[in-house]
Parts: sequence; C-alpha cells; structure tokens
Amino acid sequence: MALEFKLLAEDDLARLGKINTSHGCIDTPAFMPVGTYGAVKTLSPKALMDLDAQIILSNTYHLMERPGIEIIKKHDGLHGFMSWERPILTDSGGYQVFSLAKNRSISEEGVTFNSPLNGDSIFLSPESCMQLQSDFGVDIAMALDECTPFPIKKTEAKESMLLSMRWAQRCRDNFKSETSGLFGIMQGGMFEDLREESLEKLIEMEFEGYAIGGLSVGESSEEMLEIVNFVSLKMPKKSPRYLMGVGTPLDILNCVQKGIDMFDCVIPTRHARNGYLYTSEGTVKLRNSKNRDSTDPLDPNCCCYTCSNFSKSYLFHLDKTREVLGSTLNTIHNVYFYLNLMKQIRDSIKQNKFKAFVDKCRDTWDNSNYPHIEK
Amino acid sequence: MALEFKLLAEDDLARLGKINTSHGCIDTPAFMPVGTYGAVKTLSPKALMDLDAQIILSNTYHLMERPGIEIIKKHDGLHGFMSWERPILTDSGGYQVFSLAKNRSISEEGVTFNSPLNGDSIFLSPESCMQLQSDFGVDIAMALDECTPFPIKKTEAKESMLLSMRWAQRCRDNFKSETSGLFGIMQGGMFEDLREESLEKLIEMEFEGYAIGGLSVGESSEEMLEIVNFVSLKMPKKSPRYLMGVGTPLDILNCVQKGIDMFDCVIPTRHARNGYLYTSEGTVKLRNSKNRDSTDPLDPNCCCYTCSNFSKSYLFHLDKTREVLGSTLNTIHNVYFYLNLMKQIRDSIKQNKFKAFVDKCRDTWDNSNYPHIEK
Repeated sequence: MALEFKLLAEDDLARLGKINTSHGCIDTPAFMPVGTYGAVKTLSPKALMDLDAQIILSNTYHLMERPGIEIIKKHDGLHGFMSWERPILTDSGGYQVFSLAKNRSISEEGVTFNSPLNGDSIFLSPESCMQLQSDFGVDIAMALDECTPFPIKKTEAKESMLLSMRWAQRCRDNFKSETSGLFGIMQGGMFEDLREESLEKLIEMEFEGYAIGGLSVGESSEEMLEIVNFVSLKMPKKSPRYLMGVGTPLDILNCVQKGIDMFDCVIPTRHARNGYLYTSEGTVKLRNSKNRDSTDPLDPNCCCYTCSNFSKSYLFHLDKTREVLGSTLNTIHNVYFYLNLMKQIRDSIKQNKFKAFVDKCRDTWDNSNYPHIEK
Repeated sequence: MALEFKLLAEDDLARLGKINTSHGCIDTPAFMPVGTYGAVKTLSPKALMDLDAQIILSNTYHLMERPGIEIIKKHDGLHGFMSWERPILTDSGGYQVFSLAKNRSISEEGVTFNSPLNGDSIFLSPESCMQLQSDFGVDIAMALDECTPFPIKKTEAKESMLLSMRWAQRCRDNFKSETSGLFGIMQGGMFEDLREESLEKLIEMEFEGYAIGGLSVGESSEEMLEIVNFVSLKMPKKSPRYLMGVGTPLDILNCVQKGIDMFDCVIPTRHARNGYLYTSEGTVKLRNSKNRDSTDPLDPNCCCYTCSNFSKSYLFHLDKTREVLGSTLNTIHNVYFYLNLMKQIRDSIKQNKFKAFVDKCRDTWDNSNYPHIEK
C-alpha cells in the first residue's frame, strides 16, 4: 500500500485524519520535525520516539550533497541510514536550489547549479529528483518545483508556475513506487487565479497529496493566511493538504482552521538552540537574566523530559557554558510543545471544540516576540 | 552513613569493592565520567542512567564560577541542580586553580586568583573549599591541594607537598558531613620518599579515601605507573584508592593491576567529540575516509545504543555535517566502552582471572595512536 488517507472528522473547516504508510500511521493535523541531513538536530531516533514523533522531514537537496545517494543506497535507504523506523517525507530540493545554490541556470529540462559546498556542477530534473527520493525509500516524496521569491510580478509568477506544473507532470509520470506516495506542489505566488490554475492542473495529475508551496518566503502571516484560506477551500477533501515551511504555533492553529493537515518548520528546533522556548504561558527567552536563578521549570504545565527534570536556572547555565546538552534539552521541550499542540488540536477537533481551543491559545500566546526565521 | 567501603575480593593486587553512599552504591574498580559544569558533555542524566554510570565527577572550581554556589544552594545542591540522583564526586578545584587561573598568589592561608571569565578576584582556602563542596551536597569531596607542575625540583615539590598536607588537615578539621566522605590527596611529584611522607600524613588524618594527585600532568605513562606502583602498596587496604585524571583504557588496566579502585578522565568524552572511538578491535578514527561508506557499526562486539543502531558511515556523515547528534552518539559509545571495560575488569577480578583479561586487552589495543590529552 503506497499511502492511504482517511478523513475521520471535521469541525467547521478543520479536519481530523490519518495517513497510513508502510512505516506506520500519521495522525493529522501533523507537524513534522525537520531533519535536514538525516538527523533532527540534537535528537536521536530514540529521543524522537520518546517524543512520539510520527513522521520527520528530510531534505533531498542536502542529502544529495552529503552523504550522497550512493551511501544512502548502501543502507537500503534513508530509514536504514538514520535508523528511523517511522515515516519520512523528503522535500524535493526545489526550495533549496533556489535559495542556496550558486550559478543557478534553469531550463525546461531542469536546473543546473553549483554546489555551495565544493563548486561541483549538479543537474536536477524532475526525473532525477524522483529517482533520488525513490532511492531514499521515503514514504512521501515531493514533486520538483521552482520556488519563486516574494514579491514577484504576476507574469513571472505565471511563467514559473506553468513550468512547475509541467515538471509536476513529469514527476508524476516518473514516480513509480509501491510503497510511497507523491505530493504535488501548488505555486502561483500571491495571485489567487494562478494558485487556482496550479491546483486544477495538479488535481488532474492525481497526486496522493497536495502541498502549498511558495509561502513562508517573506510575506506577512496575514498574506500567507489569505492564500491558504483561498486555496484550501478548493483542495480535494479526500487527500492530505500540506502547507510547506509553516510555521509558528499560531500560524499552525490558523491554518488548521482553514483545513490544512500537515506542517513542517525549523522553528521549534532552531529557536530551541537559540534559547527561545514555547510554553503554555507564553514564550520564554532563556537568556533573559531573570532566568538565571529560577528554580521553576520552563513550563509548569509541561510533561516533557526537560520540564520534568530541570529548572530554568539549569538550562540558563547550560546555555551560558555552551553545553551541548542545553540545546538537546531545549529542543526536546520545543518539539514536545509542537507535537503536544498537534495532539490537543486533534483532540479538540474530535470533540468539535476546535474553535474554543484556538481562542484559548490566542489569548495566551504572544506571537510577535519571535525573531523572523530564515529557512 | 557518610561513606562505607567494602573490599569484596582481591586478585593479586587488583581489588573488587563496593562504596556505599547516601545516593547509592559504586562498584569498584570504577570509572567516573567527567561533568565539569554539572553536565557530562552531550549526555542527559537519562542517557547516563541508560549507560548505568554509577557516579560522575564535577568540578568545584568551574561550578564556583558558573553558576555560582548560591544558585546551586537554591536547588538544594548539585544533585537537584543537574537532576542526577546517583553519587557525585567533586574535585577541590586545586588542579584548575593551578592550571587555569590568572594572577595566582598563594599563601599559607589559601590561594587568591583572578577568574579567567570576568577577572574577579577569588580567594579559595581549605575552609571555603570544604564549605563549597558541603553546600554542593556531593557524596565524595576532595581536599584542597596545590598541584605542582612536571617536572619540578625536589625542594619545591617537598615544600608544596607539606603545604598541601597542612591544608589537608584544615580540610579534615572543617569538613563535617553526615552524608558525605572526604578524600585526602597525596602529592610529592615523582619523588618516592615525598609521596610516602605525604601518604603517612594523610593516613594520620583519617580520610574516607585516599587519592593520588599530581600525576597525569605531562609525565610518561611509565613514570606515572612507577609512582602508582610504589604508593599503592602503602595505601590503606580498607579505604578506596583514587588515581585522579587517569587515563587511557590501558592506563586503567595497568593501575587496577596495582590496586587502584577509582578513576576519572575526560578522554572518553573529549575523544568522542573529536571522532576518536575505542572498540574491542582497537581504535577507530572516525574521520578517516575509509569510514565514509562503511555500513558496519563502530564495534561489532558492542551493545551500546550507537553500535546497535548506526553505521560508521552515518556517524562519519554526522561529523562531516557538524550535527551535534554525532557528538552525542560518539560519547555514548566511548562512555559505554569505558563503563563496560570496568565491568569486565570487575568480573575478571571476581573470577580470579584479571591477569588473563589484561593480557588479552593488551594484545588488542594500540595505546599509542591517541593524541595527548590536555585536561
């Protein structure tokens, strides 16, 4: 069985679902911790299992550069390489090619670029991108797309979107897996008609899921939400809907409310390493000197390993002395917070109380005191 | 009960024992992983429990600077601060004052120095050192000593040793704890008669254990072993014998063979972070390019979490991409190797087969291909 999505309940537009994969199931709405290089930063697979992460995301672009596909194939795929037994989704590398690569040259055929690591010339086409993700053996592969910057002129956005759709078709034609599903990625910038056109083309190609790409690239949360609001109403009900690269806890709540099922973001892991911690009482900036001698946990209502065992003072001290353990303990907390948030979201949808849950969260969290996240 | 040592078996000079403390027992010969700042680098208390570490070592000097004694007292001691429930030994800070501090000025009363962190003038006396370790609430405290460099003239070594012995007496007089034991530290450089004089003075003061200080400071393994050989024969049989700052696996074997019961060293943790791994088949230099595509574990005979789940290729990749998880997994392996070595040592002493075990190990290990360790 490649991939099976069951819609279990709806609460207004919010959806409760389950994705069955050959590596186990994913309860949706789901958040995927990011493991760029085949490792969620600071967390072992055991730690991720303790946190009950059901799926992680990894990056085709980064893995293609290091360790390279041959080494992953020697381990019978990414699951074996990183010793992670649950589902994996890989992004296609499109975003990274357009944000990281040097001397990028794009053609109908694909994209040629120089590796920022060693300068090697690399060619990535829809076909080679599918081959890579197939060799990774991931549960969910993503189509190769061109990711446009923000802001962008409509003519350019349209041309790029149409190229991405032709690439999507070639991905669909070339992705042959008995055990994995392929998601198409919608583009079209901030233009509703382009987004609609993109989605219609993807639906015709019959993907196992549909992603919203090209958001979280510099636009405001409000602009992002407008597009999500517009497209989610038109996305197929019977397939998982994935909003790529989003976001803060409040972004996630807002987008679940629009009917989104899947999210990924570096926020919880990266913020953790920089001492920004999410709690049920708002955000904690660990490096604030008031935490130096606080014997309280980060969050008195949190049951994670970190909050069950350590004070803010100890975490402050680990940060101050640059002990790696601090990054690990902070990451455990933030990932727990995100995964626990998703669990609470699912519970509230199940009970038809999602709106009340959102209102309660909005009252507590201050979404504005976080620095902008560069992906 | 402060501290109770039971000698359970002897195999030639090697000793099998048990130290009971108010935080649990320590099987000897024992190795103590080093947690300088109240954290064994990269390892959570949970990870240390999984490794079955029975005791860890922390540093009075470093903890005094950061986070400072007041914060540790707010957590009811070091156990509470770092959330570690098993025994802790703290060194007295003598070694660090003499190796790290700036503008050191020594007098009969104690030592004044400037903090390398912030330039603050700090005074450490035998009395204040005992107060600090008492406030830490550790299971084993160490007397304050002056640690001499290598090499040193005999007149200077003698003068320093005599000062350390007067300080030891003040430590003994001032350390009053119902729950902790105090170890005296022998000095005397490489001079046997000074070592003997130092030991005799310490024995008169009646410590709960006796440590050999001033070794592993730059002398060769052979020179170190000569002194250990000389003094261990004269150390009280009924008390634990602790060789400070030692050493490689082979050093440990050699010194257990001379009758030493306790060891600590940064080697397993520091080497791990630098990609030097101990295995039953010899040493692995992880960064060697031959490990790039090896699907074998670090050690086919090792049952640690790392060897049970990851290939050398994956660990090579984590090191190459500077993923912190690599340091954690390597540290788990090296600490497991050390603790498992101690377990095998204890088993072989119990079976009166220690000599055969040492010979087997010596045949396998190449002790020479490790860089010199700076403490």
